[in-house]
Amino acid sequence: MSDRVLICEVGPRDGLQNAHHLMPTETKKAWISALAAAGLKEIEVGSFVPPKLIPAMADTGEIVAHARTIPGIKVVALAPNLKGFQRAIEAGAHKVTFPVSASRKHSESNVRMTPEQMVEEVRKCAQFPHPGVEIEGAVSTAFGCTMQGSVPDDDVVRIAAGLAEFCDYVALADTVGYANPAQIKRIFKKVSSAIGSKLEAAHLHNTRGLGLANALAAYEVGVRTFDSSLGGLGGCPFAPGASGNVITEDLVFMFEAMGVSTGIDLDKLMAARKLMTEAIPQEPTYGHFSLAGYPKGFSAHA
Amino acid sequence: MSDRVLICEVGPRDGLQNAHHLMPTETKKAWISALAAAGLKEIEVGSFVPPKLIPAMADTGEIVAHARTIPGIKVVALAPNLKGFQRAIEAGAHKVTFPVSASRKHSESNVRMTPEQMVEEVRKCAQFPHPGVEIEGAVSTAFGCTMQGSVPDDDVVRIAAGLAEFCDYVALADTVGYANPAQIKRIFKKVSSAIGSKLEAAHLHNTRGLGLANALAAYEVGVRTFDSSLGGLGGCPFAPGASGNVITEDLVFMFEAMGVSTGIDLDKLMAARKLMTEAIPQEPTYGHFSLAGYPKGFSAHA
Repeated sequence: MSDRVLICEVGPRDGLQNAHHLMPTETKKAWISALAAAGLKEIEVGSFVPPKLIPAMADTGEIVAHARTIPGIKVVALAPNLKGFQRAIEAGAHKVTFPVSASRKHSESNVRMTPEQMVEEVRKCAQFPHPGVEIEGAVSTAFGCTMQGSVPDDDVVRIAAGLAEFCDYVALADTVGYANPAQIKRIFKKVSSAIGSKLEAAHLHNTRGLGLANALAAYEVGVRTFDSSLGGLGGCPFAPGASGNVITEDLVFMFEAMGVSTGIDLDKLMAARKLMTEAIPQEPTYGHFSLAGYPKGFSAHA
Repeated sequence: MSDRVLICEVGPRDGLQNAHHLMPTETKKAWISALAAAGLKEIEVGSFVPPKLIPAMADTGEIVAHARTIPGIKVVALAPNLKGFQRAIEAGAHKVTFPVSASRKHSESNVRMTPEQMVEEVRKCAQFPHPGVEIEGAVSTAFGCTMQGSVPDDDVVRIAAGLAEFCDYVALADTVGYANPAQIKRIFKKVSSAIGSKLEAAHLHNTRGLGLANALAAYEVGVRTFDSSLGGLGGCPFAPGASGNVITEDLVFMFEAMGVSTGIDLDKLMAARKLMTEAIPQEPTYGHFSLAGYPKGFSAHA
């Protein structure tokens, strides 16, 4: 085994947040349990946003509490502000991720703050007591924005460096699926030079089909943590056409085929996928492994 | 501009050969003209196989003759044997590609010859006078086979080296979509060490969604010629589940986004795609660029 990666399933948050159909709370719990049974060690289970804004996330407190009972997984929740962070801490999240858009236009449209003001908001959250809870700063629209178009590399590096001052981890997110492999390598290298090992995850979308190629590029410059969603469920509600995270099962297959261990059992992952698609059958899902299956004689490294 | 790649459109051959619906000869001609107008410089227009075996290829002679009238393109045809080669020369193909399976089981099942016997068959073809016609040996199932499972690297290197003795070019084909990026790099490097610059193209399929990631991996080890098909049309009729070449428009988008010139105009390529899908509307097509379009502010390098 040459190496290993950590895959963080974000379907219960990024997927369901953008789905047109609600998944019942008990099904969410069963799905998260099935994901953990497949070997997922980190799961972003929900978002502490106002329930009126995103009804699909109204039960996040209960979902976090359930996920906490599953041994061996890190339970992640998204929070957009201090109120959300307080709810996440109260619910028992192990790790809270704060999105900060590197695109000025996206940030101002989305949270009515500049990226710099948003970094200061997250700093205030970090100053709130949070014993045992890890904080991730996620630089969204780091590779381009549907409102602004291109986002200067320097803006990404500056926001990442600001977050690294007080966050445990920093992630870079291709929120709207604009990234290409050359850009992925260039920007991850620049941010890594600026903040070192605090740079952790690549959060990629598959909008233009480059999800796996971008993941490969990130892997090649040292990234070992990847967000993805089962069946490619999800997207960004504030970015038109941004549907679809990189697809968990295809990502797992790619890495396992390359001899890179994910710790994930693909058969059990397919069982978790079946549970999901049966619960929200009208919701579009994607992916190739689910159709094509294993190559003949394939041996996974899970 | 850091670099450029050559993309060879194989849809009129690999795509239509496996389509369930016939494309009328005049539409094929219009499609090939539209592909050339989009900037494709090399087009595999058909296959000189027995018409009874593959009716969709019965008009290949007429198609080659038409393609020959388009200035600035290299007209490629597939031939499985000497008879096909003679027909290709007579029709006026600029380049003829001979598939030789590296998988013993696939070769014996498909052409009733061992890979070594098939290399000798192609050698006999190469000894037939073919003034001005280039010959490519395409090592098929080079990354695995639905019948045999894994194919030893040494078999691929040996077949490629045999073909390189008398072919102008050698290509490696992931006929059934089994390849992964690590394997692509490893095998292209091994074959390149054995035969040097005669190794030219990567012929990739997208069966497990890894088409673009594999193309990226091949690019990173020096491959600059890629076979692909518009809309991902096509596959291998002798390999179940092998549907879908890597998708031309997504491949072009990836490279252009990376700053690698393809010489292809994506808007005109979309026009060629529309012509194709309108001609065979029931045929499944694939791809992301056709749905998502350009990122805001995107500037191509065509």
